[in-house]
Amino acid sequence: MIAPLQRVERAIWRRQGFAAGERAIPEETAVAFTYDGGAYAVMMATPQDLEDFACGFSLTEGVVGAVDEIETLEIREEELGIELRMRLKPSRGAAFGERRRHLAGPTGCGLCGIESLAEAVRAPRPVQSTASFRPDEIMAALEALTRAQALNRETRAVHAAGFWRPGEGLAPVREDVGRHNALDKLAGALARRGIDAAQGFVVFTSRVSVEMIQKAAAIGVPLSVAVSAPTALAVRMADAAGMTLAAVARADSFEIFTHPGRIKAETAAQNVA
Amino acid sequence: MIAPLQRVERAIWRRQGFAAGERAIPEETAVAFTYDGGAYAVMMATPQDLEDFACGFSLTEGVVGAVDEIETLEIREEELGIELRMRLKPSRGAAFGERRRHLAGPTGCGLCGIESLAEAVRAPRPVQSTASFRPDEIMAALEALTRAQALNRETRAVHAAGFWRPGEGLAPVREDVGRHNALDKLAGALARRGIDAAQGFVVFTSRVSVEMIQKAAAIGVPLSVAVSAPTALAVRMADAAGMTLAAVARADSFEIFTHPGRIKAETAAQNVA
Repeated sequence: MIAPLQRVERAIWRRQGFAAGERAIPEETAVAFTYDGGAYAVMMATPQDLEDFACGFSLTEGVVGAVDEIETLEIREEELGIELRMRLKPSRGAAFGERRRHLAGPTGCGLCGIESLAEAVRAPRPVQSTASFRPDEIMAALEALTRAQALNRETRAVHAAGFWRPGEGLAPVREDVGRHNALDKLAGALARRGIDAAQGFVVFTSRVSVEMIQKAAAIGVPLSVAVSAPTALAVRMADAAGMTLAAVARADSFEIFTHPGRIKAETAAQNVA
Repeated sequence: MIAPLQRVERAIWRRQGFAAGERAIPEETAVAFTYDGGAYAVMMATPQDLEDFACGFSLTEGVVGAVDEIETLEIREEELGIELRMRLKPSRGAAFGERRRHLAGPTGCGLCGIESLAEAVRAPRPVQSTASFRPDEIMAALEALTRAQALNRETRAVHAAGFWRPGEGLAPVREDVGRHNALDKLAGALARRGIDAAQGFVVFTSRVSVEMIQKAAAIGVPLSVAVSAPTALAVRMADAAGMTLAAVARADSFEIFTHPGRIKAETAAQNVA
């Protein structure tokens, strides 16, 4: 197993001069996802929670519709990284082979420009959930996420994504050097535990790029909460998906960019008042 | 032209309740790079400085060895994004076609796992430069970078990369929602202006993932300075490339992870003392 964290020697410069010392930094490993013998993608990721990563990535990228369509998963440590070697159930494997042949194009040289844009900005899966949440739950989830970031506490350099369920709190939480990888690992952890993503919300430490919304929509999350700001395309994608997007979350505030109806104002404090 | 910034309506929640308002957020656009009719990659990027992006990405990904190997560049705005449509000089185009056929694999279904790991963690180009820099130049470059981030001043949500030349200061600077895109745009701006990357250093606002080092090494930069922390793989890659890596840069300090010899202690202040 590759350790998710390394301690390295480094010099530090301050006005008074140089000094020696060490710092804990996160590992970053090339992780190749292969299905039925062919490579689909390589992600640069933190080498932990790899079963979750394999399942979650396969789900959020639409390679499979459910985790049990992955017949086998073998985690292979190679010299230059890790291969997540998956074999799909025959019916899903045939459908995926068709898609891959299409992506490769008739001449084996890739899509044309317009096709590849369409693949990148594919329409999100519509969110069906009618669940709603209170602002104090969102604030509690953000506080819990900070406490749960074990790897970030040592390195100050990795992202995290967690899942909040009303009455249950924040679990599971996953960390990674890549924000989308943290979300994929979370998606895999939810699916493997049989937790219904439609009944809670995700909270993550990063900015909201469009792929975060695409991935959250793929697993049916009704609300995404982010510490940092969204891009304009991410807002449009969340709007189109019917997903509530809260972002720019601070210790005492957050902003709501789409579908505010799922956030109900009646907090306990306001009921008292 | 797509605006790099959008102003959107959003609600803000604070303890006392909800309020309406607006926020400036960065645009994010799918940008497809096509060469001689086939798509190579799609990046999610800020839609500005696209000529720089086309040239810089082509250089740092090794599609071309010099900008003049791109015979034509056409920037096409499509419904779902932007195509950077390039035609390569025939000699380069033939070599690139070979590489693409290899990447597609004999059955058109992509590389196997080990090949795709090797492609992702390819050895960096060795840095040849013998230039050296003073700590006060590094601090000055970081200060100048903060002042130069026009899009970030309005959105607080984009990265920047700039180039420091001794005696010349910090120019050019490029911004993007993606850290590697900002660096690619900078690489393109340097190449198009004929600025020798070996004579200065790059400074960027983000963490140092391995691709930042691969890209900086590809254009021959001897020193990379980052505001945030590096990954362990990025440190190993900088070490292997012979590149000096300074990171975790604060208002009064920075840390040096590799090849410290290029940073000379004799600052003006220390000479006086």
